[in-house]
Amino acid sequence: MTSSTAYQQLEARFTRLHRYAHLGAMAGWDQLTLMPPGGNEARAEAMAELSVLVHDTLTAPETRRLLDETDAVALEDEQRANLREMTREVQDATVMPPALVEAQSLAGARCESIWRRCRPDNDWQGFLPAFREVVRLSREEAGIRAEALGCGRYEALLQKFEPGLTVAELDRIFNDMRQWLPELLSEVQAHQRERRIALPEGPFATEDQRRLGERVMRWLGFDFDHGRLDVSLHPFCGGVPEDVRLTTRYREDECLTALMGIIHETGHARYEQNLPPTWRHQPAGRARSMAVHESQSLSFEMQLGRSAPFIRTLQPWLVETFGDQPAFQAENLIRLAQQVEPGLIRVDADEVSYPAHILLRYDIERALIEGEIEVEDIPARWDEGMARLLGLDTRGNYRDGCLQDIHWTDGSFGYFPTYSLGAMLAAQLMAAARQAEPQLDARIAEGDPSLLLEWLRTHIWQQGSLLETSELIRQATGEALNPEYYRRHLRERYVDGK
Amino acid sequence: MTSSTAYQQLEARFTRLHRYAHLGAMAGWDQLTLMPPGGNEARAEAMAELSVLVHDTLTAPETRRLLDETDAVALEDEQRANLREMTREVQDATVMPPALVEAQSLAGARCESIWRRCRPDNDWQGFLPAFREVVRLSREEAGIRAEALGCGRYEALLQKFEPGLTVAELDRIFNDMRQWLPELLSEVQAHQRERRIALPEGPFATEDQRRLGERVMRWLGFDFDHGRLDVSLHPFCGGVPEDVRLTTRYREDECLTALMGIIHETGHARYEQNLPPTWRHQPAGRARSMAVHESQSLSFEMQLGRSAPFIRTLQPWLVETFGDQPAFQAENLIRLAQQVEPGLIRVDADEVSYPAHILLRYDIERALIEGEIEVEDIPARWDEGMARLLGLDTRGNYRDGCLQDIHWTDGSFGYFPTYSLGAMLAAQLMAAARQAEPQLDARIAEGDPSLLLEWLRTHIWQQGSLLETSELIRQATGEALNPEYYRRHLRERYVDGK
Repeated sequence: MTSSTAYQQLEARFTRLHRYAHLGAMAGWDQLTLMPPGGNEARAEAMAELSVLVHDTLTAPETRRLLDETDAVALEDEQRANLREMTREVQDATVMPPALVEAQSLAGARCESIWRRCRPDNDWQGFLPAFREVVRLSREEAGIRAEALGCGRYEALLQKFEPGLTVAELDRIFNDMRQWLPELLSEVQAHQRERRIALPEGPFATEDQRRLGERVMRWLGFDFDHGRLDVSLHPFCGGVPEDVRLTTRYREDECLTALMGIIHETGHARYEQNLPPTWRHQPAGRARSMAVHESQSLSFEMQLGRSAPFIRTLQPWLVETFGDQPAFQAENLIRLAQQVEPGLIRVDADEVSYPAHILLRYDIERALIEGEIEVEDIPARWDEGMARLLGLDTRGNYRDGCLQDIHWTDGSFGYFPTYSLGAMLAAQLMAAARQAEPQLDARIAEGDPSLLLEWLRTHIWQQGSLLETSELIRQATGEALNPEYYRRHLRERYVDGK
Repeated sequence: MTSSTAYQQLEARFTRLHRYAHLGAMAGWDQLTLMPPGGNEARAEAMAELSVLVHDTLTAPETRRLLDETDAVALEDEQRANLREMTREVQDATVMPPALVEAQSLAGARCESIWRRCRPDNDWQGFLPAFREVVRLSREEAGIRAEALGCGRYEALLQKFEPGLTVAELDRIFNDMRQWLPELLSEVQAHQRERRIALPEGPFATEDQRRLGERVMRWLGFDFDHGRLDVSLHPFCGGVPEDVRLTTRYREDECLTALMGIIHETGHARYEQNLPPTWRHQPAGRARSMAVHESQSLSFEMQLGRSAPFIRTLQPWLVETFGDQPAFQAENLIRLAQQVEPGLIRVDADEVSYPAHILLRYDIERALIEGEIEVEDIPARWDEGMARLLGLDTRGNYRDGCLQDIHWTDGSFGYFPTYSLGAMLAAQLMAAARQAEPQLDARIAEGDPSLLLEWLRTHIWQQGSLLETSELIRQATGEALNPEYYRRHLRERYVDGK
């Protein structure tokens, strides 16, 4: 067998895995949007069975043999990148015992389902038993991965979302942020204290909000021939690149929150819809990492969606949809979109206090995985952190406290930091796009986001996973991830009022 | 290895297959209800990949070995029934070359997607190329199965839906019906010619129809904790027993068609929701056959749903939902529900002309599979048949003619006859239930269908596939399938006016 044949066989094997993943993605989307509660057990079993199948395919001796027989030197550059991603995925899977993979999938699905019941009831105690099992299994996973990678337990989980990122690097970035964030937040609050904001008066019918959301999605280039907008408790972007399913949740007393959520998920969606088509069945054709993914949703929501030029574009659409009212004056809407007001809910948080939510979760999940605290300690740590970081009282309020996120319910520890890394990267990408396209802001102000979108398409979306994250950032922006762009963006928008 | 161990390993293997089937069922449901058109190619690929996986699992030498090593004598009765179903399924799969299975899945999905575009456009020519490929592959399948089973080509396909049914038996039953159906139809039409029916005046808002549909579903015992009601172009009942997804389609100028469709699909749904739970992962726990399935939907729609006692129960609900109007008088509604009027569309057909639609399709699909006609000949055959059987002109009207059904698009040849077999069985079951429960009709007239539903649960639903079809019918009704009950039912309802 020649080595190119071995590589072709690997590609066929990963094409098969891509198709299995399609079924899992759709079953997972349905589980969070439409599935009746009684369907959960069978769904969880089916998805766990799929996890086992994927795991078995990745770790089959035949896969290992094909990897060993592939001569990387004989491949073209992009094939070599694909081989690198295949190898990483096989190694990731190989360290994990199949029984643990299945146990995690089952425990995660159960815990998620229980969370959906317990959260509305503020029932932390009811949530605990299922969650304790998820944490136990994640610690087991962390221990196994840490030993294989020769790193710490939390860092080992971080690799699943941000390959190559160390805790040391993360601490360097986050400790930098810990230095300037509290002062910046006070400064912004002081700066905004004088401002009066008129709140738009509802009700804003769900159906109208949905139509407006779809209009904005179209303006942002979302392809409805390859995707849908639906409703779920916790907004997310799921599905597959050929059929991207994004969700939001509507509140009829409010007209901007769901819309900004839609803009956010549309950033994820356009990344998925515009991955390199020639690599669509292969690991090299996937989105690069969670931080890069989040940089796209935040480029859409924060860099573009809450900017004054976009709000001026949106303003007449709001009036068309809901009728005019004083609160819909453009300057008032801009103040509303850029209002900084520390609150309990991460997904509703403004851009300046958001990082505090991440620091809180990072500190807790890292301590939890490292075994420094137990699940019972979370509420106290949460209360202390929210008081210290944002001056808010969360005691006894689990629903809007440590029960608010879906992430921990299926054991996605190591995911939260990528949100703030994504925010930093979004600011850095915006700066690079502005430099490359001097007309970018002017064109957005004229209601045309295409210069920005095309720049992102070329530099991020169409790159898939052909480059490593660090190289992708360097090729797009000319330097490594640099949190200074983020600090500068926050200062310019919220203090200098540019 | 003892033989009970071999059997247990078989059960584990079929549990795995059950979970794979779950993923396929949900992906298939989504494809027909929500999926945007651009998602179809990737979905078709993923579902074809799953077909290959299922096929490979069924035909693996290990499966064969386990079947050979299982000592049926050492098993309990129900296990032996399960072994019989396993063996049938393995044999079914073993005769089919994997490449043909994959080609059929792909061609079927493509053709179905093209059908969804072509039908509204009345575009038979646009549909032909994809359909020709489906027929070519079905003929190939029929040839392979016929050789393995030692029977004719069409009969070989019939086995997929009605194991054990021969073409000779089917012809005996259908030729019997060909004798009395035309005369009965004329008699009914003559009998109804005098009647005046007031048509309910719309519009009937889709949302109101949906609420009424859900109310009737609840009355019929549908468990919304394990299922949903949605919308699709062609109503169907899909999903999995733990999460049954039924669909309908609404027309705002009409208030009974969608409702009767819902009642029909609810019959399928209750069968699925009430299969024997101890066998839920195994072949013995599945619904028995297509004719038995259809007998349940028709017990609900025809035996119960269009009966005078049920219509009297429904009447106040219609008034509550849509407001009162003269056409909502009970006697008028009964006439409406029992109106016989030959029309072009099978799924909208009344109970008396429906069998004519089946005879037409049976004649065409049998000739098509046996190679007596080609796809190009279908419209002429259709026109001739509709003129002869129902006196209707379909020339040039493909949308409401040979393009109206989804069944042929994915190669489900041999399926149509089961509709009329189901109608006959429904009449026979109703007669047996009446005999067993003398209060049955009186209780339905009081608004309580529980005697009928419990009888069906015990005699059909909870039997799963533990018995062969013929034995199931015999145990439930005391005799073999006997079309006389059907003829008598039609005559009593439509001529004698009982």
